[in-house]
Amino acid sequence: MKNVLILTSPFGKINKAPINLLKKNNINFYSNPKNKKFSRNELLKIIGNYDGIICGTYKIDRGIINKAKKLKIISRVGIGLDNLDLKSLKKNKIKVAYTPDAPTQTVAEYTIGLMIYLLRKINVSRKSLKKGKWLKIFGKNLNETKIGIIGFGRIGSEILKLLKAFHCKDILINDVNIDKKKLKKYSAKQATKNTIFRNCNLITIHLPITKKTKNLVSKKEIAMMRNDTILINTSRGGIINEDHLYDALKKKGIYMAALDVFAKEPYFGRLRKLDNCHCTAHIASMSISCRNKMELEATQEIVRFFKRKKLMFQAP
Amino acid sequence: MKNVLILTSPFGKINKAPINLLKKNNINFYSNPKNKKFSRNELLKIIGNYDGIICGTYKIDRGIINKAKKLKIISRVGIGLDNLDLKSLKKNKIKVAYTPDAPTQTVAEYTIGLMIYLLRKINVSRKSLKKGKWLKIFGKNLNETKIGIIGFGRIGSEILKLLKAFHCKDILINDVNIDKKKLKKYSAKQATKNTIFRNCNLITIHLPITKKTKNLVSKKEIAMMRNDTILINTSRGGIINEDHLYDALKKKGIYMAALDVFAKEPYFGRLRKLDNCHCTAHIASMSISCRNKMELEATQEIVRFFKRKKLMFQAP
Repeated sequence: MKNVLILTSPFGKINKAPINLLKKNNINFYSNPKNKKFSRNELLKIIGNYDGIICGTYKIDRGIINKAKKLKIISRVGIGLDNLDLKSLKKNKIKVAYTPDAPTQTVAEYTIGLMIYLLRKINVSRKSLKKGKWLKIFGKNLNETKIGIIGFGRIGSEILKLLKAFHCKDILINDVNIDKKKLKKYSAKQATKNTIFRNCNLITIHLPITKKTKNLVSKKEIAMMRNDTILINTSRGGIINEDHLYDALKKKGIYMAALDVFAKEPYFGRLRKLDNCHCTAHIASMSISCRNKMELEATQEIVRFFKRKKLMFQAP
Repeated sequence: MKNVLILTSPFGKINKAPINLLKKNNINFYSNPKNKKFSRNELLKIIGNYDGIICGTYKIDRGIINKAKKLKIISRVGIGLDNLDLKSLKKNKIKVAYTPDAPTQTVAEYTIGLMIYLLRKINVSRKSLKKGKWLKIFGKNLNETKIGIIGFGRIGSEILKLLKAFHCKDILINDVNIDKKKLKKYSAKQATKNTIFRNCNLITIHLPITKKTKNLVSKKEIAMMRNDTILINTSRGGIINEDHLYDALKKKGIYMAALDVFAKEPYFGRLRKLDNCHCTAHIASMSISCRNKMELEATQEIVRFFKRKKLMFQAP
């Protein structure tokens, strides 16, 4: 019988399907009974007993991996793999599965909602009215905005597709590899990052966090931006330098930032106090259907692996 | 030379095109130099001098119309005609033009943004984080929501079209006259109002205010609704009974209301104090491009009329 450790929470709460699937396949599973995160020390003590892990963003480093003598598979509920030491995992012949398709629609939709809400200054009107001021404030439609999408993977492309439904014409795309067919289909243009920083008044980031993307948007890049720019990051923290962004927002160098992700999470830093920084608690993928899908798909990968079947999504 | 009174503000501020058009056609125009609304008495004193009016939501009643001895045309910047006494205007052979197409995209986009923002509880997460709480809150995608659209004119249909881009499948439509072709094209279903009230957890209203639609959503209708319902009105105030809505929200009979329009505007009533009522200052059509389009189209109608050309959009 195989033993699986569950390091993500909630799991199987909203929908029992993943729990039922584990049971049906006679897989033992265990999660923190205190309903909170294991400390690293707690994890080190028990990790040796487990053949598989289902995890979220828990940081699994070399020390943990070296203690995980029976571990053969880690299945990630979600898409980012930055919390896993992939090199050590490879060395120890531990496979990694993930669910890259599940969050696409949910994160894209969240980002579009945020764009409209901020462009139309809905919160400004709401807050004013709460205080007793009837403020007929003007905003911008998506299609009167020059939009830059940095990162043209699953989520970036879905956002482009949705923006076309809103009749947007002026969209610039940047990524290291660009699917030219998709670009042509939605009549968007490829551009350098600097062209996007200089010209767009709505910039949205959809990249993984890597050595190359860390601090990709720092002082120099923010200084290039127009002062009516809205800068959105719903991908991974650390891509925008938080200190540099704070300085820019403080002196109104750009109009607004919206961050759903932070270099260190949970985030309790000073950006969240600024009126021109819209901060949320990494919720862009937190829809019920997305969570259910990610949990179930990650569990299916575990079952596949122990049945010696091919994984659907093995980490690159 | 013709004299036109401008009763809407701002006008020609963001874009000079309507002002230039009036000048080019030798039309005199006048607006309140104090940059505020004329009182009814002020208006009664001067109305006799004008051949045309360009207006927004200024209430033009029988008393005013009877004093407007030279008036031949009213051109409405916008779509609703509820502020005009159409009967008296007809009797006095004063024509009415309006700009029904201009706000469609802008109001539809605003409504979609609001839907996503509220469904995903973005404001809840933002407020919590501001206060120092990292709240991983779940929301719903548009396509895991049962959506009811009441009013299937220009804006209602555009919203349906946009919802389909977000892969929504479960949409019910109600109106007195339904374009069956459109319904089929976007595979939505026709339903009675009561079916929508009882079954949908997102209800959005896109109706004009008339004797028949006034208080259309009152105590009885709200009582039918699910307690997870979000009720949105970006069309006209008075369609939802504000007192009955207040009572329902107070006892959490429904999850949330979002009102951009009120029976009496500017609105300073008690709904705006409730955390589960998202109130804004009639800004759903307030995008720069929409405003420019409405102002220019309303002005073009005035020019057409004085050149004895056929109006593009004569009020029904």
